[in-house]
Amino acid sequence: MKIFKPFEVIKEELFKSEEFSRELLSTKVSLVLKAGGYILDSGGKRIRPGLTILSGKLVGAPLERLIPVATVMEYMHTATLLHDDIVDGAKLRRGKPSANDVFGNDVAVLVGDYMFAKAIYVLAVYGGEEVLKVAAKTVQDMSEGELLQLENVGNTDVDEDYYFDVIYRKTASLLSTCCECGALLGNPSDEKRESLRKFGEFIGYAFQLVDDAFDYVSHSERIGKPAGNDIREGKVTYPLLSVWSELSDKEREFIRKVFSEVEPSREEIDRVRKIVLSKGGDRKTFQLAREYVERAKELLKQFPESEYRGALCEVADFIVERTY
Amino acid sequence: MKIFKPFEVIKEELFKSEEFSRELLSTKVSLVLKAGGYILDSGGKRIRPGLTILSGKLVGAPLERLIPVATVMEYMHTATLLHDDIVDGAKLRRGKPSANDVFGNDVAVLVGDYMFAKAIYVLAVYGGEEVLKVAAKTVQDMSEGELLQLENVGNTDVDEDYYFDVIYRKTASLLSTCCECGALLGNPSDEKRESLRKFGEFIGYAFQLVDDAFDYVSHSERIGKPAGNDIREGKVTYPLLSVWSELSDKEREFIRKVFSEVEPSREEIDRVRKIVLSKGGDRKTFQLAREYVERAKELLKQFPESEYRGALCEVADFIVERTY
Repeated sequence: MKIFKPFEVIKEELFKSEEFSRELLSTKVSLVLKAGGYILDSGGKRIRPGLTILSGKLVGAPLERLIPVATVMEYMHTATLLHDDIVDGAKLRRGKPSANDVFGNDVAVLVGDYMFAKAIYVLAVYGGEEVLKVAAKTVQDMSEGELLQLENVGNTDVDEDYYFDVIYRKTASLLSTCCECGALLGNPSDEKRESLRKFGEFIGYAFQLVDDAFDYVSHSERIGKPAGNDIREGKVTYPLLSVWSELSDKEREFIRKVFSEVEPSREEIDRVRKIVLSKGGDRKTFQLAREYVERAKELLKQFPESEYRGALCEVADFIVERTY
Repeated sequence: MKIFKPFEVIKEELFKSEEFSRELLSTKVSLVLKAGGYILDSGGKRIRPGLTILSGKLVGAPLERLIPVATVMEYMHTATLLHDDIVDGAKLRRGKPSANDVFGNDVAVLVGDYMFAKAIYVLAVYGGEEVLKVAAKTVQDMSEGELLQLENVGNTDVDEDYYFDVIYRKTASLLSTCCECGALLGNPSDEKRESLRKFGEFIGYAFQLVDDAFDYVSHSERIGKPAGNDIREGKVTYPLLSVWSELSDKEREFIRKVFSEVEPSREEIDRVRKIVLSKGGDRKTFQLAREYVERAKELLKQFPESEYRGALCEVADFIVERTY
């Protein structure tokens, strides 16, 4: 396993987490091994276990509870990926064929359920009631987020409140839960618990903002999916929202038309991208992401300086510095 | 709401459960209301909440915990139905169009997830750790059961152990969990807990056995799906297993061929049904179901006579007496 640089300080713990994960996935049902393993093995930085462990370390959480809880945060993420890919009809995930494409929608649904269930079971055994409540709330959030987005496909009348509601549920909620649950295992003060929860939430916003900006600027080779994906799927994101008020009536009318189409052409998508980029929608989005990262790091100042605090700041910085 | 006859004694509690369910499903995401409501409102006898309440009543569980826990057992069931229908590509459920057919696979996946999450959340708040572990284990069982079945589509070499493993996971596990969790809320002795758990398991076997027998004997109008569904889907069930050793080589060869086909003809399906029925596969299956019902009722004898114990016995009897 290649360790993501900020996680070097918890290398040992992450290895233990991978070991725990392998034991956990032992089952006589070979489709679970194949599909679950396929997606777990397909790389990823283990951001969620890493954040959980770092947060726990910051408040002195015991390792024997921290490792299992951290491990299954990745399971919750994996389950969501499996189910979201069905919703999106995705063919690629991290540059390789998505699990639903390889194994079929039926297997993706069921293995997703299995991994959710496994996660809940481990949280019940190692996490305790409070951790479980937070985690169960997040599973609700994540499915509600996808549903909200689904309800508003093609709707160009959504506002920033809507956008932040969706990205909270889709992305920030789980990252926030990782940090909060890691913290909860160390019996932190209310203030520290809240700070770590907010830290996760803010880097979650930053993460999704950057992702949404990349969808306007990137090339397919870089992010493993074609640019303009959100436009094609009729999803209004921050780059567009941030420039909406500056657009001419004609530009708005054109964009409304493109978002309402089931299959807009490459030319139409690229023209929407150009309009948004010409008004600086990408810059504004990256700028807001940077602000969230700064606010997130600010929250950590109440913790004494340590390699764990440093690592959390590095993760936050990475979000706005990544260039893929 | 029409009350299922054996549940007359807990009519008040079931009304409270419906009320709790309506409050629980309040969300700003209208697709949850539509799809979740669609399937919750489509009738059903509320077997799972009813069993949970009766089991709890039998050991004096407090109502303020029993009602929420009982209610979300139906949510777990509903979530499973939503996801299973995707797997089966089902077009009908209880005689009306299935939710995935009305709302699409994407909505069915996400609303299923939402209902699982809601269930887990309520169990974390009202159930306690032990209830949660039992319930989380069941969600694993249910997805593993479907996956096991998926792996063995068309496989005529499976045996009775395999069959009971699958129907335990698919059907008996949740019924068993309803009874066990209802009991757990009353702090029962280990023996009573185990008896109620087993009671649920045994009526679960009986329930599925009867279902599988009906698939060989029934007409489409009665069960809302065409007879021979399992044969068409390549699923080997007890009626066939119970007569397998009595078949001629030629009959077995024919059946193997039909089970291996993606789209067997109506004539082929009906010939398989006829072979199995001529050897008494349906009778043997109903007989075994009756034995499980008797064993289930036997387990209740250790509880003092009461209207609740009587009602549980009625539920058990109903399973083998239903004629649809």
